[in-house]
Amino acid sequence: MSPVRRPLVLLRHGRSEWNIQNRFTGWEDVPLSPSGAEDARRAGAALKAAGFTFDFAACSMLKRAVETMWEIQKEMDLMWLPTIPDWRLNERHYGALQGRNKREAAEEFGEEQLRQWRRGYNSRPPLLERPAAAPDHRYGGITPPTGESLADARLRAAAFYDEHVAPRLRAGERPLIVAHGNILRALTMRIDNADDSGGAIEALEIPTAVPLIYELDENLRPLSREFLRR
Amino acid sequence: MSPVRRPLVLLRHGRSEWNIQNRFTGWEDVPLSPSGAEDARRAGAALKAAGFTFDFAACSMLKRAVETMWEIQKEMDLMWLPTIPDWRLNERHYGALQGRNKREAAEEFGEEQLRQWRRGYNSRPPLLERPAAAPDHRYGGITPPTGESLADARLRAAAFYDEHVAPRLRAGERPLIVAHGNILRALTMRIDNADDSGGAIEALEIPTAVPLIYELDENLRPLSREFLRR
Repeated sequence: MSPVRRPLVLLRHGRSEWNIQNRFTGWEDVPLSPSGAEDARRAGAALKAAGFTFDFAACSMLKRAVETMWEIQKEMDLMWLPTIPDWRLNERHYGALQGRNKREAAEEFGEEQLRQWRRGYNSRPPLLERPAAAPDHRYGGITPPTGESLADARLRAAAFYDEHVAPRLRAGERPLIVAHGNILRALTMRIDNADDSGGAIEALEIPTAVPLIYELDENLRPLSREFLRR
Repeated sequence: MSPVRRPLVLLRHGRSEWNIQNRFTGWEDVPLSPSGAEDARRAGAALKAAGFTFDFAACSMLKRAVETMWEIQKEMDLMWLPTIPDWRLNERHYGALQGRNKREAAEEFGEEQLRQWRRGYNSRPPLLERPAAAPDHRYGGITPPTGESLADARLRAAAFYDEHVAPRLRAGERPLIVAHGNILRALTMRIDNADDSGGAIEALEIPTAVPLIYELDENLRPLSREFLRR
């Protein structure tokens, strides 16, 4: 009998308008750019061509992730798929940096400080004075953060994974998770059970709209991890 | 204290390609037409302008309903909304009539027989010999029907309502349900607790992409029911 190999697909949303403008985004609900939607469709076509299918999809509550997921569903003819939107898959909150241009922030704070905020594991960005007013009842049950380190984000990503993903993986379901660069990096730490020393994590860059394919064993330990390049 | 008035919004999908070609559709997974997508966006704009919002949406597993729901979500800036796709909201199964032109079927079987099949409560259409082969794992847990009366469809619509909608209504949530002409007619029978005599039900025509707004009291009894005309 061949060993169990459970697929788990992670996907960072296509480029948003602020990716293109080089601005910190975080929880700001910026739409996908037209080229980002096109990239999402290409990712869907690549997954389909490689023989992937899914039993459910999870995504953040931010529209650039939701729209990416919808484009994948359309492209793969999986519009009927059950989906789980959850704030715990939202991008790491970038605090007072949200909305700011990354180059201008580097000039103000220095390259090294910026690199720490962006890639360090425990460093929080400058915080908002209070949580940003929600435009709707989306975050009804929680108080949104005012700024998070990658360690903060890892806690919620892991809680989501343990509650919604791991049990379904054990039941043989095939998940697609559509989220954001930093929160996916945090999620891979949970999947890999990586320690906090940060070396490998600091190095893991997840490009937009390129599926990251895990294969897990029956105990959900990673057997392989690779990007599905087109 | 003013009495509780719980809103419940039902919506029939925008016109599909087969609505336009005047063909029986049922469980055939026909896409929305471009004008159907436009109608869905207009329905979303009308709901938004009238001050509606939602806490979750439910839809069938057929893409003309899913796409209508997505267009509403986009138009109302509710892309983050939790959604429940369920086969029990699929259109009534039209058996061997599926795919056939309605005028040609009338010529073959007679107008009165066709009217019975389309609008009678207990009459089943000519059945398929066996369930149609599913193109995917969408209906993994069930054996799809080979043809249904409105009474058959009512049973599953009511089961879905009792399981997923009624408890959330009691908790104060505001649902949007996007489905199909016949299954929504069956669902209104459950909501109205209408008897099976069929007179009023036979008469209820639900137009495509026009929201049907219920207000329910604290025991989920209808206080009012009206279409939101643009």
